[in-house]
Amino acid sequence: MPLLKSWIDSANSATTPFPLNNLPCGVFSVGEGDLRCGVAIGDRILDVTGLEEAGALRADPEATVLDAPDWNDFMALGPEAWAAFRARLQAMLGEAADEATRDICTTYSVRLHEADLHMPFRVAEFTDFYAGRHHAFNVGQMFRGPENALPPNWLHMPIGYNGRASSVVVSGTPVRRPWGQIKPAGADQPDFAPCQRFDFELELGAVVGQPSSGPVSVAEADAMIFGYVLLNDWSARDIQTWEYQPLGPFQSKAAATTVGPWIVTAAALAPFRLDTPEREVPLLPYLNEPGPMLYDIDLTVSLTPEGGPSCVIARTNYGQMYYSAAQQLAHHSSSGCPMNVGDLLGSGTVSGPEPGTFGSLLELSQGGQAPIRLDGGDTRAFLEDGDGVTLEGQAKGDGYVIGFGTCSGTVRPALADPYAR
Amino acid sequence: MPLLKSWIDSANSATTPFPLNNLPCGVFSVGEGDLRCGVAIGDRILDVTGLEEAGALRADPEATVLDAPDWNDFMALGPEAWAAFRARLQAMLGEAADEATRDICTTYSVRLHEADLHMPFRVAEFTDFYAGRHHAFNVGQMFRGPENALPPNWLHMPIGYNGRASSVVVSGTPVRRPWGQIKPAGADQPDFAPCQRFDFELELGAVVGQPSSGPVSVAEADAMIFGYVLLNDWSARDIQTWEYQPLGPFQSKAAATTVGPWIVTAAALAPFRLDTPEREVPLLPYLNEPGPMLYDIDLTVSLTPEGGPSCVIARTNYGQMYYSAAQQLAHHSSSGCPMNVGDLLGSGTVSGPEPGTFGSLLELSQGGQAPIRLDGGDTRAFLEDGDGVTLEGQAKGDGYVIGFGTCSGTVRPALADPYAR
Repeated sequence: MPLLKSWIDSANSATTPFPLNNLPCGVFSVGEGDLRCGVAIGDRILDVTGLEEAGALRADPEATVLDAPDWNDFMALGPEAWAAFRARLQAMLGEAADEATRDICTTYSVRLHEADLHMPFRVAEFTDFYAGRHHAFNVGQMFRGPENALPPNWLHMPIGYNGRASSVVVSGTPVRRPWGQIKPAGADQPDFAPCQRFDFELELGAVVGQPSSGPVSVAEADAMIFGYVLLNDWSARDIQTWEYQPLGPFQSKAAATTVGPWIVTAAALAPFRLDTPEREVPLLPYLNEPGPMLYDIDLTVSLTPEGGPSCVIARTNYGQMYYSAAQQLAHHSSSGCPMNVGDLLGSGTVSGPEPGTFGSLLELSQGGQAPIRLDGGDTRAFLEDGDGVTLEGQAKGDGYVIGFGTCSGTVRPALADPYAR
Repeated sequence: MPLLKSWIDSANSATTPFPLNNLPCGVFSVGEGDLRCGVAIGDRILDVTGLEEAGALRADPEATVLDAPDWNDFMALGPEAWAAFRARLQAMLGEAADEATRDICTTYSVRLHEADLHMPFRVAEFTDFYAGRHHAFNVGQMFRGPENALPPNWLHMPIGYNGRASSVVVSGTPVRRPWGQIKPAGADQPDFAPCQRFDFELELGAVVGQPSSGPVSVAEADAMIFGYVLLNDWSARDIQTWEYQPLGPFQSKAAATTVGPWIVTAAALAPFRLDTPEREVPLLPYLNEPGPMLYDIDLTVSLTPEGGPSCVIARTNYGQMYYSAAQQLAHHSSSGCPMNVGDLLGSGTVSGPEPGTFGSLLELSQGGQAPIRLDGGDTRAFLEDGDGVTLEGQAKGDGYVIGFGTCSGTVRPALADPYAR
């Protein structure tokens, strides 16, 4: 598919993350104004809440769904409404739009750089997976040794754990280094102390847009996914090492999870579908994919020390995942577990096979043993206070890209005394 | 504290679960009527939604908070409002109440047996702990052998994992036997099949009634807990065995969690506070309790085969827990993880030291090796289709009891084909 031309010039460049082919969904405010739903187009945000109020754009003929500080009500309308809304927006913003349409869209749009971006959706529940083959091996080796690196179940199911929705924050929110129980190697007793091995994890999050009330097939699951966001699963490795057996990560993953401000819809990503890699062992039928359900999305991680230059420390691709989000969602529902609009599924860390493609410092620095060198000359085993971590993603089309915006967070120092009031 | 006398005679018996000392919070409906907040008293439910509408009872002088199908808005008011509301109800229902008060309370009350009971609160997020010393040892031994029974971190922190809020249901809701990935001992490959080792777990759930935005002390955590419900953490043991390494239980715990219909408030339980057992190793200071934060609550589990007699299969006491809910909540917040009104914390299975005090079939039947005998002559290693499981709890006062009502669920057969549409 080629670039779709818009009457908004900035949307027609080959490098804008937000051409007419994309139309990602976000929530914005300007100054002290209220939170509104918006769609990014070129260097602007189309205020779809305003257009709905003005009667110029309806997502649902029966009700207003965009007069909300999130996209949940819209997502609940379902795939037909999603497609109709997208078609309507593409008509209004396409080069064939008439003057009146252009005028009202101009009235209800703001410049991206003038807007503050907020959580694009209300997270119902957050589940994080562990579905990258290379990451699972790399990390498994560090936690359990090379002979037990890949758990016996790993090639048979997308291993996941329930995370904490209350600490999911939007890009730009500072992230406080957590305190926690840590037992240093060789110590007799644990200590309660600030995390010393604070890390990021490069992930893509799938946003569930439709509910289910029983097991769903992979095809049904795929149709339930509204879109994808960048996701940084901040991880306190020292807390994790001590706490995670036998019931999994808990406080090590609970301080914060940062998501990008834009939900890139499955519709926008459709031209970039990829098959999951060849299976090393056959999957049980309930996990078989009826078609390609990964996406060819280039991902990068940049680290910016306080006051220092930004440095790309990892480049990888979402196509590295062993399991797709549709497979994860199907597995998640296999017990009959109800899934809801706004559920967020983290892909698991996206790591490729070589060092420069690893999606966490744990892997990049070989568990802290081999600190990486940044462009400014600094080295990093794990994150230091003031470090900024930025995730970016894009799918490369024919003369256009589908961008995710940036997903950033800066590490704040741990509280001096977490119990001081 | 003695029995507080009410003008409602049925509330004055030494055996009613709902004397004036209790006043648990539930949600009820009658016939096709709407869902209303109610407080149990003797054989009645006081319709506090109706009393608020009528202007006879205010929880908040500024706003209506009981015109909702759950107690969340009320809980959000905080401990002072909880205490004032309780005092006002005790005055209205106490024997000194005047005729006009008695009349309006009679107008706004229904018989318990006429009402349907619903989820008493909206579950924000659900976390399940593993805080019973005997249960942890018993189960750890089966999953990891006696030498690794108690994980090294267990005596240092309340081990917990995030569960799934979407599958929390109220007592009386049938529970469908789940399908899942199961790898029988000795098999080469897993199969996708109905669970063959379906189990219950006897727990008490703490209902968080106040939010937090950073680490909270154990004392602060204790003050955030509005009350307690009975909780059955249904568990698919065969699915659990295969999936739970390395990231913890996932689909094995996701089919359903049943809670009792009545939130018994921390205020009602105050006379029954107990210290946690003596520490086997000292706790880190952030987990030290400034006072007794467990409760002396007798708990029973009954199993009722389809058409068969009900049989009590376990009797234990909440005082068996090694960690209190306040310690669990403090630990949960230790990373800075925000906690919210409606968060539900499962205690972990409450098991005593002897066989008749074990809170799961896994323990009662020694991992299925030694089926237990029921009163009707049947035996059970794990749950069979049609089995009903009922949890009950009561704290025994001086001439009165504080009851929790019953927390029941009946096992429905697995779907014949979970993907048939």
